[in-house]
Amino acid sequence: MHQFRTHTCGALRAADEGKTVRLSGWIHRKRDHGGLMFIDLRDHYGLTQLVLAPGTPGFDVAERLRAESVIKIDGEVVKRTPETVNANLPTGEVEVRVRGLDVLSEAAELPLPVFGEPEYPEEIRLKNRHLDLRRETLHRNVVLRSKVIQSIRNRMTAQGFLEFQTPILTASSPEGARDFLVPSRLHPGRFYALPQAPQQFKQLLMVAGFDRYFQIAPCFRDEDLRADRSLEFYQLDVEMSFVTQEDVFAAIEPVLHGVFEEFADGKAVTPYPFPRIPYREAISKYGTDKPDLRNPLVMQDVSEHFRGGGFGVFARMLENPKNAIWAIPAPGGGSRAFCDKMNAWAEGEGQPGLGYVFWREGEEGGAGPIAKNLGDERTRAIRDQLGLKEGDAAFFVGGDPKVFYKFAGLARTKVGTDLELVAQDRFDFVWIVDFPMYEMNEETNHVDFSHNPFSMPQGEMEALETKDPLDILAYQYDIVCNGYELCSGAVRNHRPDIMLKAFEIAGYNAETVEREFGGMLNAFRHGAPPHGGLAPGIDRIVMLLAGETAIREVIAFPLNQQGQDLMMNAPSEVLEKQLKELHIRLAPPVKV
Amino acid sequence: MHQFRTHTCGALRAADEGKTVRLSGWIHRKRDHGGLMFIDLRDHYGLTQLVLAPGTPGFDVAERLRAESVIKIDGEVVKRTPETVNANLPTGEVEVRVRGLDVLSEAAELPLPVFGEPEYPEEIRLKNRHLDLRRETLHRNVVLRSKVIQSIRNRMTAQGFLEFQTPILTASSPEGARDFLVPSRLHPGRFYALPQAPQQFKQLLMVAGFDRYFQIAPCFRDEDLRADRSLEFYQLDVEMSFVTQEDVFAAIEPVLHGVFEEFADGKAVTPYPFPRIPYREAISKYGTDKPDLRNPLVMQDVSEHFRGGGFGVFARMLENPKNAIWAIPAPGGGSRAFCDKMNAWAEGEGQPGLGYVFWREGEEGGAGPIAKNLGDERTRAIRDQLGLKEGDAAFFVGGDPKVFYKFAGLARTKVGTDLELVAQDRFDFVWIVDFPMYEMNEETNHVDFSHNPFSMPQGEMEALETKDPLDILAYQYDIVCNGYELCSGAVRNHRPDIMLKAFEIAGYNAETVEREFGGMLNAFRHGAPPHGGLAPGIDRIVMLLAGETAIREVIAFPLNQQGQDLMMNAPSEVLEKQLKELHIRLAPPVKV
Repeated sequence: MHQFRTHTCGALRAADEGKTVRLSGWIHRKRDHGGLMFIDLRDHYGLTQLVLAPGTPGFDVAERLRAESVIKIDGEVVKRTPETVNANLPTGEVEVRVRGLDVLSEAAELPLPVFGEPEYPEEIRLKNRHLDLRRETLHRNVVLRSKVIQSIRNRMTAQGFLEFQTPILTASSPEGARDFLVPSRLHPGRFYALPQAPQQFKQLLMVAGFDRYFQIAPCFRDEDLRADRSLEFYQLDVEMSFVTQEDVFAAIEPVLHGVFEEFADGKAVTPYPFPRIPYREAISKYGTDKPDLRNPLVMQDVSEHFRGGGFGVFARMLENPKNAIWAIPAPGGGSRAFCDKMNAWAEGEGQPGLGYVFWREGEEGGAGPIAKNLGDERTRAIRDQLGLKEGDAAFFVGGDPKVFYKFAGLARTKVGTDLELVAQDRFDFVWIVDFPMYEMNEETNHVDFSHNPFSMPQGEMEALETKDPLDILAYQYDIVCNGYELCSGAVRNHRPDIMLKAFEIAGYNAETVEREFGGMLNAFRHGAPPHGGLAPGIDRIVMLLAGETAIREVIAFPLNQQGQDLMMNAPSEVLEKQLKELHIRLAPPVKV
Repeated sequence: MHQFRTHTCGALRAADEGKTVRLSGWIHRKRDHGGLMFIDLRDHYGLTQLVLAPGTPGFDVAERLRAESVIKIDGEVVKRTPETVNANLPTGEVEVRVRGLDVLSEAAELPLPVFGEPEYPEEIRLKNRHLDLRRETLHRNVVLRSKVIQSIRNRMTAQGFLEFQTPILTASSPEGARDFLVPSRLHPGRFYALPQAPQQFKQLLMVAGFDRYFQIAPCFRDEDLRADRSLEFYQLDVEMSFVTQEDVFAAIEPVLHGVFEEFADGKAVTPYPFPRIPYREAISKYGTDKPDLRNPLVMQDVSEHFRGGGFGVFARMLENPKNAIWAIPAPGGGSRAFCDKMNAWAEGEGQPGLGYVFWREGEEGGAGPIAKNLGDERTRAIRDQLGLKEGDAAFFVGGDPKVFYKFAGLARTKVGTDLELVAQDRFDFVWIVDFPMYEMNEETNHVDFSHNPFSMPQGEMEALETKDPLDILAYQYDIVCNGYELCSGAVRNHRPDIMLKAFEIAGYNAETVEREFGGMLNAFRHGAPPHGGLAPGIDRIVMLLAGETAIREVIAFPLNQQGQDLMMNAPSEVLEKQLKELHIRLAPPVKV
């Protein structure tokens, strides 16, 4: 018989009746019942109920042991009586009558209970992560993460991708977020940096001819922490050669769809091809480039109905051609109470208020100050355009869309959420495409890159040479799920001539570009394939699938929000000798 | 038709004859033949021969293009004539008659040629890794690495292991090799460290109940570099709960055996269970705890034949009971020339020489100074013990085995290698087990830990309390393949009481142990399962399978031997502003 177990705690079934078994595990819960002692014995695989009669060898020891002690027992599998069967437990038809018991590890008093997982302050949970990780929800989340990553790997491999590791000790990047630095012992005064992403390496792999790369890649950014952002995070880093934007989509859609279907626990997942929405359309319909499509509301421009109309505020606004009036339809929101609530919310958001019209049952004309001033015909035209009916409402945001679009997007979310229109049982994917290559910097009045300067402009060199820069779109895209941006990506600019021209438009001369990005340019001059890729965030994917809102709930050993590991005591002070070897000295901030 | 390709460069076969195809790739090689231009077009998947007739659109451009330029062609698949078929190429039955050609990326003059992969200085190769990686051997090695890791992952998963990521920004460890440090911006004067191995985290995962963990884990050690060691390396990190040493072996043997069989390219792989050799036996048979079992030679103690015999040097040596005489058999080495060569080699190694007896054909008595002095009978007894015959030789090493065993091991390797006895077509695995828990520190005359203080002593508490510490063995093991140590591992000591006792024997009081290892002790006090594991080096496994002797040949982007990334320029100087944010200052070494 094996020294520790013949079965795991999740294995025994009615068919095992009569077997002599050995189990090892943690004491999950202990209770007395009619003189017998019942122990739920727990391991990674499940729970098995043990029964100890008084006088059984080990009974006294077991009585004394605290929960979470680790024991090994020998015993016999017996069927439970019908009324004591636990249908919620795979092992619930049987229990094990204990004949002998050994203590493998006795638990001292616990700083954090495991059974029942009562709420505890995060600091205690993180400091005792070895106990926290035994709790059902976190244990399940961490296993889910492992299975999601494994599934992603298998799906990427099935699509012909190979995984390569790129360096973690690498060079500080000239732009982007703040780097973590690692002082070099062998090269005094010099530093490695941890990668913010393996962007340059994955492009070099394409230049080296590897064709289809992926990596579950650790990335590091020394930025301030948020619930959905960590100093150290993982992304599914992907790059492909000889591809168009649609090829990238076609490769990644089955992977994301498949993984979500596999772990969505019955929720519907957008079938692929996923919808593609141009950036400008996303802004005007949803007020954001990260629309949550589970919210069915679509905003519309209703300026024409207000132009020269009786509602003076909007009519005057529209005299400036930059301005517009957008409407947020609110099906089922047709009551003064709801409209007042939304108006109050808008004021809370620092807005002057939120204009509205509502149509009560049996009141076709519409109610509220705007309706009164605008008149029946125009109000009805708005209702018709928005496809609304009695019992519904519409909210209005006016001004320069560049200024108000974000607030309009928030209002759309608020209306959809408060009217319970947002589907809870779906994962809704959408590609946001056609990001503008450039934007006007209102302060400097110069043209800047909007997002990624290394994306290929649509129309390539010809577009750069002939079009208004503000009209040039990039082969750049985001994928959004339920309002979360999972990643951005792009078809890259692999042509040094087009890159120099693209930077020239943004005000960088060739010398600067060669100095800052000479390494990549140099590689591109040795024969580079057209290539593109993207990098969805693993932690966010798992967070969505686990139904969590903090990524610390899907990471086995996360740092806290101050970037500390409370269990290992990191970051910590180090020895003077270590600093000396690294040729650095401390320079504590000066206290004022 | 796809914008870049209908087929890869490895796809076309005779059955594709007549098809109109589009290919993209690198110009691998260009040559003229009877007025026609032949181009070998290369991508990740293979080579396809293109034929351009003069006057074909693109002919003039192609004439001008340098090798490694990236082109796209349209053309027609034609069968090659029987005498021009290239049987070495999967696409060798066809060629593509080009009808049109576009340049996707023109190559400038190359610092490193790709075709034919002529030897080039490593510095140029690393500085132009994007070109180096296009070369056949390195490209194949990096793909092999990816496939080996994928295979390991699948095999581990099939064995019921789950992969978890452990932190890379973590705490500096109190012992072990030198840490890489990462200054914290949010916590002035404090530092993260990169993990030397996820040892503590994997044990905490067991304490947290995850049962079977693995990770292809990046590890970091700021140590001086060697051909088979890098600052950053990967290990297959493994840990299991409720296991004995044999369970660990049984879990990992099918994985290693399977991976090696899969990629051994026809070489034989030790069937499992792999042999287990106790540490002390390995030392006495092979003179090392990393024996290369492809070398069939096994040393033997032949002291008895020399004791009180006519060969005075050895006879006097043996008067000291610490001393012994070991013999290295040399089948086929029975010539004065070979024995003299070995003797000269030993002198070159700083030894006084290497005693020998050799048996020429037809000369049963044995020749050489030792045979002459020892006499026929004893010489024959040695020959019989070693199982040698005419045409063979034996070499002798005498003195204190603790001092000479390493040299004896080298001599065994040298004899086996020079006599070409080492099998070249095998991967020979062996477990080295039963490492001693303690050793005598000859300088301090105190008992020290031999290897890992956290291994479970065989016999547990009872052994610690009753045995001579130098007789206590540990549940600690190495796996060795072809003389390379792939990893060490152990069944861990999960009992705080046994751990305190084990440290006490090595001279550490409880206070010191609690201070240094309180985190782990604390976790163990909350209920810890018996657990054990190991961590084979991925880079070494791939190196063995690729037949390389430097790990830089199996890593896509390695640092050079000075720890520099010559392409990305790492480590590099950073901005004063960055140092200030991190609360550190440079302290360059003082020049004397």
